[in-house]
Amino acid sequence: MESMIIYAPIVLAIIGLLYMWIKRSWVLKQDAGDGKMKEISDHIYEGALAFLNAEYKLLAIFVVIVSVALAVVSFVVPTTHWLIVIAFIFGAFFSALAGNMGMKIATKTNVRTTQAAKTSLPNALKVSFGGGTVMGLGVAGLAVLGLTSFFIFFFWYFMGGEWTNTLDMTIVLETLAGFSLGAESIALFARVGGGIYTKAADVGADLVGKVEAGIPEDDPRNPATIADNVGDNVGDVAGMGADLFGSYVATVLAAMVLGNYVIKDMGGSIDDVFGGIGPVLLPMAIAGAGIIISMIGTMLVKISSNDAKEDQVMRALNIGNWVSIALVAITCYVLVKWMLPATMQMEFFGEGIKEISSMRVFGATIIGLIVGGAISSVTEYYTGLGKKPILKIVQQSSTGAGTNIIAGLATGMISTFPSVLLFAAAIWSSYAFAGFYGVALAASAMMATTAMQLAIDAFGPISDNAGGIAEMSEQEPIVRERTDILDSVGNTTAATGKGFAIASAALTSLALFAAYVTFTGIEGINIFKAPVLAMLFVGGMVPVVFSALAMNAVGKAAMEMVQEVRRQFREIPGIMEGTGKPQYDKCVAISTEASLREMMLPGLLTIGFPLAIAFIPMIFGMNNLAIAEMLGGYMAGVTVSGVLWAIFQNNAGGAWDNAKKSFEAGVLIDGEMTYKGSDAHKAAVTGDTVGDPFKDTSGPSMNILIKLTCLIGLVIAPILGGHTLDDVNYSAENTEIINVTDLENSVTKEVEIRMTTEGDETVAEVRITTIENGKTDVKVKTYRGTKAEVEAELENM
Amino acid sequence: MESMIIYAPIVLAIIGLLYMWIKRSWVLKQDAGDGKMKEISDHIYEGALAFLNAEYKLLAIFVVIVSVALAVVSFVVPTTHWLIVIAFIFGAFFSALAGNMGMKIATKTNVRTTQAAKTSLPNALKVSFGGGTVMGLGVAGLAVLGLTSFFIFFFWYFMGGEWTNTLDMTIVLETLAGFSLGAESIALFARVGGGIYTKAADVGADLVGKVEAGIPEDDPRNPATIADNVGDNVGDVAGMGADLFGSYVATVLAAMVLGNYVIKDMGGSIDDVFGGIGPVLLPMAIAGAGIIISMIGTMLVKISSNDAKEDQVMRALNIGNWVSIALVAITCYVLVKWMLPATMQMEFFGEGIKEISSMRVFGATIIGLIVGGAISSVTEYYTGLGKKPILKIVQQSSTGAGTNIIAGLATGMISTFPSVLLFAAAIWSSYAFAGFYGVALAASAMMATTAMQLAIDAFGPISDNAGGIAEMSEQEPIVRERTDILDSVGNTTAATGKGFAIASAALTSLALFAAYVTFTGIEGINIFKAPVLAMLFVGGMVPVVFSALAMNAVGKAAMEMVQEVRRQFREIPGIMEGTGKPQYDKCVAISTEASLREMMLPGLLTIGFPLAIAFIPMIFGMNNLAIAEMLGGYMAGVTVSGVLWAIFQNNAGGAWDNAKKSFEAGVLIDGEMTYKGSDAHKAAVTGDTVGDPFKDTSGPSMNILIKLTCLIGLVIAPILGGHTLDDVNYSAENTEIINVTDLENSVTKEVEIRMTTEGDETVAEVRITTIENGKTDVKVKTYRGTKAEVEAELENM
Repeated sequence: MESMIIYAPIVLAIIGLLYMWIKRSWVLKQDAGDGKMKEISDHIYEGALAFLNAEYKLLAIFVVIVSVALAVVSFVVPTTHWLIVIAFIFGAFFSALAGNMGMKIATKTNVRTTQAAKTSLPNALKVSFGGGTVMGLGVAGLAVLGLTSFFIFFFWYFMGGEWTNTLDMTIVLETLAGFSLGAESIALFARVGGGIYTKAADVGADLVGKVEAGIPEDDPRNPATIADNVGDNVGDVAGMGADLFGSYVATVLAAMVLGNYVIKDMGGSIDDVFGGIGPVLLPMAIAGAGIIISMIGTMLVKISSNDAKEDQVMRALNIGNWVSIALVAITCYVLVKWMLPATMQMEFFGEGIKEISSMRVFGATIIGLIVGGAISSVTEYYTGLGKKPILKIVQQSSTGAGTNIIAGLATGMISTFPSVLLFAAAIWSSYAFAGFYGVALAASAMMATTAMQLAIDAFGPISDNAGGIAEMSEQEPIVRERTDILDSVGNTTAATGKGFAIASAALTSLALFAAYVTFTGIEGINIFKAPVLAMLFVGGMVPVVFSALAMNAVGKAAMEMVQEVRRQFREIPGIMEGTGKPQYDKCVAISTEASLREMMLPGLLTIGFPLAIAFIPMIFGMNNLAIAEMLGGYMAGVTVSGVLWAIFQNNAGGAWDNAKKSFEAGVLIDGEMTYKGSDAHKAAVTGDTVGDPFKDTSGPSMNILIKLTCLIGLVIAPILGGHTLDDVNYSAENTEIINVTDLENSVTKEVEIRMTTEGDETVAEVRITTIENGKTDVKVKTYRGTKAEVEAELENM
Repeated sequence: MESMIIYAPIVLAIIGLLYMWIKRSWVLKQDAGDGKMKEISDHIYEGALAFLNAEYKLLAIFVVIVSVALAVVSFVVPTTHWLIVIAFIFGAFFSALAGNMGMKIATKTNVRTTQAAKTSLPNALKVSFGGGTVMGLGVAGLAVLGLTSFFIFFFWYFMGGEWTNTLDMTIVLETLAGFSLGAESIALFARVGGGIYTKAADVGADLVGKVEAGIPEDDPRNPATIADNVGDNVGDVAGMGADLFGSYVATVLAAMVLGNYVIKDMGGSIDDVFGGIGPVLLPMAIAGAGIIISMIGTMLVKISSNDAKEDQVMRALNIGNWVSIALVAITCYVLVKWMLPATMQMEFFGEGIKEISSMRVFGATIIGLIVGGAISSVTEYYTGLGKKPILKIVQQSSTGAGTNIIAGLATGMISTFPSVLLFAAAIWSSYAFAGFYGVALAASAMMATTAMQLAIDAFGPISDNAGGIAEMSEQEPIVRERTDILDSVGNTTAATGKGFAIASAALTSLALFAAYVTFTGIEGINIFKAPVLAMLFVGGMVPVVFSALAMNAVGKAAMEMVQEVRRQFREIPGIMEGTGKPQYDKCVAISTEASLREMMLPGLLTIGFPLAIAFIPMIFGMNNLAIAEMLGGYMAGVTVSGVLWAIFQNNAGGAWDNAKKSFEAGVLIDGEMTYKGSDAHKAAVTGDTVGDPFKDTSGPSMNILIKLTCLIGLVIAPILGGHTLDDVNYSAENTEIINVTDLENSVTKEVEIRMTTEGDETVAEVRITTIENGKTDVKVKTYRGTKAEVEAELENM
């Protein structure tokens, strides 16, 4: 039965997806309200579809280009298999599908939430969180389903469905990396493009609508208002979904790679009831179980009282969240104890092989769960309404926009202190527990509740939209009050969700980084070599420049939106009186086009730099392992700097936002109550303008940048490092032909070893094919003797 | 004659100091103007002295504490010599002396410049640049004099004035590191404290004076105006001086350390006409020659026409600068060819020993000169009036402070792109030319013109002050016009000077980093070890938090100033009518106290983190070499992140400043000329408020942070790494007793080796003293045989 465990994650994913489908049907069956509401909702739905369709066109071109590039590489480089192309396409497709489903349900749920808010707050929560649940389970279910299916397929294709050796498993996982690369590429479009979209629409709508024309937010007379509402879905729902889809897949993949290296460190094979691949299966099993746990968690989120306030709603969400995390901890204990050998050997750099008990791996998963929660709390502290940092920014607003900005920047910067110390402690302790396998499993445990996190996260923008629809369709004030309660809670969960997304991206990148080093077979990354140090500098710079490009992109796109809104106000007769109809679709089109155009340059930067670092020195004949080390330095630079700028920008942006919102209820400055419309409030609004691209565009983009950089590294790794004979498992049963290639010094070597036994004697036939500068040279050698003798010969070969 | 070259830098430094003294007398002989002017100038002079005196009190306490700590360490740890304490105290004293001289002459020159401006512009330039020259030559002369004298003293003390072996030279240089640490500690006070001072006074004076009371800048009725003018001297003159003093000393020291390792790689001794220490002497020789070259350069700076404009003044400065740089290039060629062996062996990490011709070392110095110039140009492009980035910020000001801020931030961020690529190229190419010795000599060559750079740099704030005095003493408009021309040029040179300071700090840190690795004897810094990676993260975070603390410090200090100015306006009768006299000294005292108090926390962060990383794991019994690697990871993190944040903050700040200044002459926005007082200008003023602490406090502080971090690492290095037997030079002449200690695994080992020859036989008596947990164990062994046999035995010991 245990050998069937490989199929369990698929089953669990399908259960999750079935539950999602039931929930989806339930949400769609809810009343979608009257004419005006429906009309607005349809506009938003169509706007969202318009963005998705435009995105898909661009995506299709991108996927074709990358597929061709991957195919060429896989034919030229013998260590890369062409199936990586298929994996890549499906990774992209699954991520896009998850985003599509999520966005559709979110834009269908919003109006139903407004309608439910007419009856009661518990109903409104039920509907909006139901929509979030569909999104969360859809993303997590598809991620696990896709990754597991491809793993099983490759496992059968390359290994015949049973353990052969770590080298073959490496090839399986290298090919599987294509799936992850596909998923993360979509995230680049969804998160960066979506981030530009949402802020361009928001800023454009506000600048002309609120400031110039003096009409309130979400006013239907504003032509950009639909684009603004679409933006919430594009950025916060689809963007966040694709981001976490990518993290989820990459984390599990990286943990599997490192699990394979645990097997290698244990002598190349282990004897367990899971066909000898327990350490590789474990991350998938945790991910699969996480879906069911998240499902249970979402069921716990409900309130009963119609008079509930933010606190009760928050508590309901927290109960669901904490129960899921506790269940993950228990599950990890059970799975680790069941699936891993009681003690393992792991190689620690510079410390040699250590004996690691499986309970230490469990310890690492607990670290992951704690750090995930702690980073969310830190984020909440630095960006939460009523917390000290926010109150300080509010005070500094009284002396003008300049001091408000300085205070916000300083808050974001100081927030890196506890966050980075937490990371450092997490890296160190999970590594001390169980090496880089421990780091990767810490990330896996943290990501296990992804579906729950996404449900909590997606319900925010749904409620925000619901409020917008209530406003635009001129509902009773009580409706808006109820949606506002949900929206306000949604703002808090958005902040903590961002903390979770950063933490997951950071741990994922570290796991990918570790997988990269093991794939290339380099002896670590020594920054005392000047080229490596130089690349560490370059890597550190890229997130800074990326952020600037993203911010400038928002500025440019917003300016186009401003021009269009001004034009409509000028040219459409009766628009301000409500008799002329604004051309919403024009604004949607501008946001769509501008965002996809403007994401090109930062996207090119992300993809171009690692490729340039890998291939330009290769052209100049540099040693491949030296290049691999340089690229590793670059990846480390991007990760360290990217995590810092992600925390800085997200928290500064969140802090400015809530400092501005503090004025709604009134704040005490120099002993005087100060409200909206005061000079201090105006200063706070300026701060929020700066914070908007920080928290919704450049900040969250950092997650994608660091993950995609490390993933590209991982995909390039086999080209740079190739495999060495160390990877081959000389077991007695090993009589097949094994292809071993070594690409050091730009020479292609192919070694075929056929080991057989003739009586007592072991016979190894070795055929070495060397391709250097286009010339092929073949040597055949035969070794005979006892098994030990032959193995020694092979080692010395 | 060549063996006397060791004294040449002292002679050159004394020539420079003599010329400085002549120039100083000339400046002081100039007319100091009439009563009112003299009175204001005296106020500024006294304010500056007040700050210096307060700073010295704090400094004295700091120096005593650090001295005691160093003394304790030097008695406990056998690898550290107590003379490091003396070197530390003198390093601090020399730096403080240089700052004192510079600040005094600057505050004396300002009023003389105003007076000279009454006659003609060429005279005004002559006087103000004369003051700058005194400052520049004083700093450079004292730096070279102090460092060289101490080197010669230690060279005689530890080595008897002639080459023994690389181990002894290592001890000489480790002790000399105390001088550099002392100098950099003063820089912490001068640059960080000074940075807080100058902005607190500036913001305080502006907020109440300009904004609330509506009186112009530099108005004598404003009680904070003297503090503001003192601040220019404290921050821009003394701060910059101490910063470059520290860089100068540290660069030369690091290059000497790496020169010693060149000798080690060449077998432990070389045969040259400089007593076998050519590679160690070279950096000092370049520094000494640089003083004379700078002297010549300053003589070339003059204009003849009284109708000259900014361009002509700029050209005069550029001629002086370029000629100096060209002369340094020629001098480097001559010195490298003369002082280095024609070919050297250098060990490259992972590549083994390489043959390096001395011309490749010359190549590295050229890299340094090019990069120094290129980074200054990049800085000028991103912050220069009329350049594209500034025009863009100006345009973005029309839509409000928010967009202005975003544009400024983005400009600073994007400016890291060319700067970091230049650095990366410099690291890589100078390393490719001549290993880390090449990197250090690139820095040395760049720093050779320090005196010239400082002269150009110091003349700016002198002219700024001169303008202030003209305003306060109500001179004819022509006087202010002339000083304004000088001031405007000074603003440009201030920006490029900051670029130079960052570039020098970055290269200095890299050289120190390399020296650190060689001192500890670790096998490089492998960031694939999780604790090292964790420290890379922590190191990356520290500059961000440091910057935030510095910014907050300015905010707090400025608020105190605001309260005081408000109080004086309220309580002193007739102050606004010019009949009541403002209490300037109170404001000066507030700036002084606040700045020195507020620099404590960032200072503690800077010093505390490396100490904690080194000593906390030591208490827990961690392997010393593992700690050394962790600390190296931390240093790399601080350097990479610090350089990024230095460039980002300096350039963003400079860009905002000049965007604001653009409005003085009027700018074209949307086809309309826009001037001071417009809404767009107000937005630009807000941007400048944010930029002020960026460019004058937190940005420049990064230089000190990264250098001091690496220097602390260097001073701790002998404690962590100790020396290994590799350092011992087994030459035939080597019959003395050599103390070798090894501190790995927290065990103190002392190995005495006495090598003698008895007839044909070589005899080595080895006495190994091991101290473990307080118990002492002594073993004595004797090896006999041929020299090769004995050496082999010793190696295997």
